[in-house]
Amino acid sequence: MEPAIRQAEPADYARVIAVVDEWWGGREMAAMLPKLFFVHFRDSSFVAEQDGRLAGFLCGFRSQTYDDEAYVHFVGVDPAVRGSGLGRRLYERFFAAVAPRTVVRAVTSPVNERSVAFHRALGFEVERVDEDYDGAGEARVLLVKRL
Amino acid sequence: MEPAIRQAEPADYARVIAVVDEWWGGREMAAMLPKLFFVHFRDSSFVAEQDGRLAGFLCGFRSQTYDDEAYVHFVGVDPAVRGSGLGRRLYERFFAAVAPRTVVRAVTSPVNERSVAFHRALGFEVERVDEDYDGAGEARVLLVKRL
Repeated sequence: MEPAIRQAEPADYARVIAVVDEWWGGREMAAMLPKLFFVHFRDSSFVAEQDGRLAGFLCGFRSQTYDDEAYVHFVGVDPAVRGSGLGRRLYERFFAAVAPRTVVRAVTSPVNERSVAFHRALGFEVERVDEDYDGAGEARVLLVKRL
Repeated sequence: MEPAIRQAEPADYARVIAVVDEWWGGREMAAMLPKLFFVHFRDSSFVAEQDGRLAGFLCGFRSQTYDDEAYVHFVGVDPAVRGSGLGRRLYERFFAAVAPRTVVRAVTSPVNERSVAFHRALGFEVERVDEDYDGAGEARVLLVKRL
């Protein structure tokens, strides 16, 4: 059975934040994901569960600067279920949630080659790589998908 | 002359992120403030400048879960100009920007006693302290102001 996807709730945050560093291969990610996403962006953030266990999640929001844009801040899938299409299903829920917006942006670290490949497979284009995007030495690949 | 306050722009991010740890007394804050706030929440985020130098900033947004709420993620003032009322002026710009919303929330760390006192002076109430709000051991004071 496929993991079931539903809107994120504040109560989901503790489970997500407990696994996020591990799911990102040991990188220190937790500080970048404050609870506010699970409180104030609930209708565009999702969790996936299977047999009561967290299988994946996505945190995103509608841009408040650009009326036609939405932004995905984090998307993660349990390494044990990668390759199953869950990441794609999470993104499809997000695209539907932010309709009729047609531009979806995300950024990822260049060291996260799997993430870049995943986004390309979903139809994201690499706009550019900014070596200091999130501060000095904090390089990011800027991704965009036009729905 | 008082520092001039204007809407934040993506180009302001590099200056802010370069001082944020220092302004927070050496705590590691930068990872909690990704550039996205300067891109997608520009009309509710502000910078203050004096003589071309950054004097303060505020990053906030409208809740997308609660129609009457807004949230301030970061507010900082150069230690050299604290006590001048700039933090209050930044918040007043934010309150005006998110009108007619009437509930403004923020969280801060309990170790940041100056921040708790500042928010109380502005009319924020402490709702509660959550010892694990932003992850295990990441305690936060939950603040709310009703306009």
